[in-house]
Amino acid sequence: MSAKPSRVALLGGGVIGAGWAARFVLNGCAVRLYEPAPEARARAADVLADARAAYEQLTLAPLPAEGKLHLVDSVEEAVTGADLVQESVPERVELKRELLAAADRGAPSEAIVCSSTSGLRPSELQAEMTRPERFCVAHPFNPVYLLPLVELCAGERTAPATVERAEAIFRAVGMQPLVVRSEIDGFVADRLLEALWREALWLVHDGVATVEEVDDAIRYGAGLRWAFMGTFLTYRIAGGDEGMRHFLRQFGPALEWPWTHLTDVPELTDELVETIAAQSDAQARDRSPRELEQLRDRVLVRLLQALRVEETGAGATLAAWERELLATTPPRLRRVPPEWVDYNGHVHESRYLQLFADATDALLGSIGVDAGYLAGGGSYFTVETHLSHLRQLVAGDRVEVTTQVLDSDDRRLHVFHVLLRDGEAEPVATAEQMLLHVDTRNGRAVPACDPVRERVAELTQRHAELPRPDRAGRSIGVR
Amino acid sequence: MSAKPSRVALLGGGVIGAGWAARFVLNGCAVRLYEPAPEARARAADVLADARAAYEQLTLAPLPAEGKLHLVDSVEEAVTGADLVQESVPERVELKRELLAAADRGAPSEAIVCSSTSGLRPSELQAEMTRPERFCVAHPFNPVYLLPLVELCAGERTAPATVERAEAIFRAVGMQPLVVRSEIDGFVADRLLEALWREALWLVHDGVATVEEVDDAIRYGAGLRWAFMGTFLTYRIAGGDEGMRHFLRQFGPALEWPWTHLTDVPELTDELVETIAAQSDAQARDRSPRELEQLRDRVLVRLLQALRVEETGAGATLAAWERELLATTPPRLRRVPPEWVDYNGHVHESRYLQLFADATDALLGSIGVDAGYLAGGGSYFTVETHLSHLRQLVAGDRVEVTTQVLDSDDRRLHVFHVLLRDGEAEPVATAEQMLLHVDTRNGRAVPACDPVRERVAELTQRHAELPRPDRAGRSIGVR
Repeated sequence: MSAKPSRVALLGGGVIGAGWAARFVLNGCAVRLYEPAPEARARAADVLADARAAYEQLTLAPLPAEGKLHLVDSVEEAVTGADLVQESVPERVELKRELLAAADRGAPSEAIVCSSTSGLRPSELQAEMTRPERFCVAHPFNPVYLLPLVELCAGERTAPATVERAEAIFRAVGMQPLVVRSEIDGFVADRLLEALWREALWLVHDGVATVEEVDDAIRYGAGLRWAFMGTFLTYRIAGGDEGMRHFLRQFGPALEWPWTHLTDVPELTDELVETIAAQSDAQARDRSPRELEQLRDRVLVRLLQALRVEETGAGATLAAWERELLATTPPRLRRVPPEWVDYNGHVHESRYLQLFADATDALLGSIGVDAGYLAGGGSYFTVETHLSHLRQLVAGDRVEVTTQVLDSDDRRLHVFHVLLRDGEAEPVATAEQMLLHVDTRNGRAVPACDPVRERVAELTQRHAELPRPDRAGRSIGVR
Repeated sequence: MSAKPSRVALLGGGVIGAGWAARFVLNGCAVRLYEPAPEARARAADVLADARAAYEQLTLAPLPAEGKLHLVDSVEEAVTGADLVQESVPERVELKRELLAAADRGAPSEAIVCSSTSGLRPSELQAEMTRPERFCVAHPFNPVYLLPLVELCAGERTAPATVERAEAIFRAVGMQPLVVRSEIDGFVADRLLEALWREALWLVHDGVATVEEVDDAIRYGAGLRWAFMGTFLTYRIAGGDEGMRHFLRQFGPALEWPWTHLTDVPELTDELVETIAAQSDAQARDRSPRELEQLRDRVLVRLLQALRVEETGAGATLAAWERELLATTPPRLRRVPPEWVDYNGHVHESRYLQLFADATDALLGSIGVDAGYLAGGGSYFTVETHLSHLRQLVAGDRVEVTTQVLDSDDRRLHVFHVLLRDGEAEPVATAEQMLLHVDTRNGRAVPACDPVRERVAELTQRHAELPRPDRAGRSIGVR
């Protein structure tokens, strides 16, 4: 049986509560949300719409039918019949205690009850509950529907089975539970976030940096590593072949320098160094420093490329550098990128068509089908393609495509492409294509407008002097 | 004229120095590296090889011809003729001062001299230089060849023109300079990193978390946001419509709670709140909270997908969730993902072929061409494809492909695919394909082995009863 709850009661519908609603609803759970604030309904609808759009892009896996979201008028109504109660009201101990006690009174005996608190201790929160053993902290991160982390923390009176059940529940809705070993204000994540935030406030307070500069100091540098490595693994790699021991030896002294407002630092005794180094060895799971470096680089490359799509942060820096490179050296030959290679070790057949389609685009650009022409409603669409695969490409090959116009009329353009590997005379593949000129406003075939029509005619005449390719006009058949 | 230096002198060839060497060499600069340690040569070669592999994957833009990398035996030899001197030796003030003074004596008068120090003050480092005005700190992050951030910090005797020139130089090699407004130990980034690191050491010291748990608390949560947003923009969004003022009002009190070991926090006076809120407004550049949330979600989705490729961190969590979804509801219909739409607003033609190729893969799987068969050296390769585009897909369309075997012999398999949109009878596109059975060890066409051959024959016989598709056997031509 799946651990996924059928019915979830949410108490509090702010940014976090609405985020929980979206995660559970999109995972197919029925949700009852109690939030008396008048804007709650609109906010929950906005967040759910954003989350739905995000999930549509996030995955091609089939999502379950959405659960129903009901806004209700009382805690009792929310918790009736629930498998999970999740409280997300503001960080005021008394308010939380009171709501949790009410939830405890109304929820079915088999339900578990969690709080989204960012840092209040579970022992304090469960104080007024009749059944405190079924309570633990489940602290998520904004946006709750996308970030996987949820910190689970037991109070003095929490039953171990409650934490185990919470782990299974949150895992079933796509999250990554982290069980906090002992009760502490701020748990683990918020202690780290709060340390960075407190130091950041000092930097702004002292006029050393603006809030944007503080953010830039993170997102163009360490933040990219933190997206997948955290701080200890990063420093293990920085330590080179000797790993964490070397790093602590090299940078340990800096702990006593005034590099932060926090100068009451733990002493790096031999015992603490040994604890950290041994835990770091366990974390590395026998991967050598070189393997870890190469994994780090592969992931950083993927992250930089992901950010380039939105031209944000380090992705914008990358895009600017590439524009400069392209302006300096226009490419004649394209390189076959490694991500084009499929699980068989071959360049996927659709990528050959991508190369040919790009050559068609270049041809169209050269005859005047540019942004202005497209804005006027005229464009050529590919209606038919005949591909022949003659040899195989491998990643890193440098290739180019030559294009010959075989024929045309005022609507049609018949072209033949040859894909060549640098330095070879025999084609790697060929593509014959028929393009049709359409009015993009109604999708009908219409004659091309001048000067495009003239250029097509002129090009067709010039290319008529070239020999007709052997593979043109082929059809497919066994006999 | 490009600001890119022709010749760079590097002093120190540890992890950072070797990283600088790779960045400059791959950007086409000639590099002389001074590092007396015997392992320097091997390390520089390893790091350059890793960086080269990373750049091959990072960009399809044409990289300049690689610069030459020379290891030299003295500071003087390194700095002769250099445009830029970059020092990256261990964090010992005396050692750095001495090397920088020697570099200053030997470098051409037009060169600038920088230090990679993580946090020592530039005024101290330039103390023994004859021309201190041409010195500043240029602090990079590991791996230097991939992370764009470089913090620039002037000392008391640095000329403003030196910092401006450093900005242009580092930008020309793909970096993102951040000019630190005033001289402070640790600059901006390392103060933030060090605050987090010091708090992390306490958590391990106190047994609250292991080093792996600390890292997980970052990489499954806030680290994903830090890859592109930093801390202030994140909190602005968390503040909802009222932004930073609301956030500071709501979470300001927590600053006085013991959520970190740093309790000496700045007081949130009205003046400080106003400064932060005004700077945050400037950073947001008129984007509404909703726009910022949607940008955040789009980028997070891209980052999660990037991490899924390597199945690391939050990407592994996503992959596990998707496997669970797929196990629960096998998809009959595929969704057209938004990233398949090209700049024209259409699904790119190569993606149609991808759908057909996947259908071919499914057919091959069903007749026994599985991992075991492939391991034995037999496989079918596509040798010819004829595509017809009849209608257009848009993002989000649900589609399926039906496949008919038209003919076969012991080596050849002739199939016809039809791409249908959910609920429509008229095809969106068709693909006729000829596949050839090959021995993958030598690339020759050979007969398929049993039981694949038998299944192909059986399927051909069964499908022979189906009507032959109208579009089968087509060739392309204007008249």
